[in-house]
Amino acid sequence: MKISELSRATGVPVASIKYFRREGLLPAGKATAATLAEYGERHVQRLRLIKALTTLGGLSIATTREVLTAVDQAQTSDGALGAISYALPVPVTASPAGDAEEEAKADTAAEAEVAELIEAMDWWTPASSPHVQGLAAALKELRRVDAGYEPGELAAYAELARSVARLDLERAAAFEDRVALAERAVILLALSSPVLELLRRLAQENEVRRRTGRREPDDA
Amino acid sequence: MKISELSRATGVPVASIKYFRREGLLPAGKATAATLAEYGERHVQRLRLIKALTTLGGLSIATTREVLTAVDQAQTSDGALGAISYALPVPVTASPAGDAEEEAKADTAAEAEVAELIEAMDWWTPASSPHVQGLAAALKELRRVDAGYEPGELAAYAELARSVARLDLERAAAFEDRVALAERAVILLALSSPVLELLRRLAQENEVRRRTGRREPDDA
Repeated sequence: MKISELSRATGVPVASIKYFRREGLLPAGKATAATLAEYGERHVQRLRLIKALTTLGGLSIATTREVLTAVDQAQTSDGALGAISYALPVPVTASPAGDAEEEAKADTAAEAEVAELIEAMDWWTPASSPHVQGLAAALKELRRVDAGYEPGELAAYAELARSVARLDLERAAAFEDRVALAERAVILLALSSPVLELLRRLAQENEVRRRTGRREPDDA
Repeated sequence: MKISELSRATGVPVASIKYFRREGLLPAGKATAATLAEYGERHVQRLRLIKALTTLGGLSIATTREVLTAVDQAQTSDGALGAISYALPVPVTASPAGDAEEEAKADTAAEAEVAELIEAMDWWTPASSPHVQGLAAALKELRRVDAGYEPGELAAYAELARSVARLDLERAAAFEDRVALAERAVILLALSSPVLELLRRLAQENEVRRRTGRREPDDA
């Protein structure tokens, strides 16, 4: 198909397609003449993925490039989900640092908390994983506002996270015959977390309403 | 305590304290002279909450004001968590709208999907809940990139969300004797979602490593 047809098929404007090509996110089409190129189904899929990552995922062009590289490399390896997961950040906002000695103590405590959890769960996650470091940072910030987790609480949440992860992997596997698993994995990781958070909010609302016996919306 | 002591106790600069006071986020201290005011423990707590919401939570001053209003109103009602949850948004990025007729069809389908789920779960969440609308929007975006959920899949995630919500409420209740439950609820809602997402990532990594038998970090 021509670039105009590619644009129609994906809803991505021609100018953006050219931009993604220049930035190396989209492979060139097959040249059919000096100024014409032919695009295929592979380009449609890739473009939909770029669109999803940059709009829904809110990723920068640089991060999108990293993720796509991970996608391309992962297609020949077993660890697709793992490799892509490393490339996709989970944002943790840190407060401005306070007293250096206090900070160092808080860092050490949070890292120990995560290491203990991983051992208790018997998770095969190396200390070098960005998510290990991210979790330590998030727990440190919560302690700072006096909202830290007890070890038992954290383990209970981790057990549920394990069940969620198993559903995630089943979902990723179910996609395999349709398009590349790696591409599905990206969508699964980058784009499904609002769904999980919204389900949690709805479930919280249900629990609160049931406990207080108020099924209908408040007037307030 | 004086404003300088309040600043030291919370790590919030004096200029920021004055800004929050002008913006109506922080109640005035008790005037002890024309240019002096006395602040108490209540101000320390409120300031820590404002700091948490604006830095960790990444909320704007306007949204912070809404949340604080919900906190203040909720302290006299049973539905603390619910009221605050409504005031705290879950960001769902929407793609630019395409063909109007297609969009309307996609909206209707997503809304029906959410309504069915809520009925199947027997959740007491009214259709007017912002989270019902948010979930429909998130599901619509996922369908757009051909990554929608099957009804059974969504219900399985919803079951786990219910378990997470029960842990959340237990956690909120445990805080009650220390500071206002409403303040804890805000932190629980706004600041703990990165922890849940990171636990999910770690659990995914564990599952992938176990399935592929690779415990150690990759060289790639």
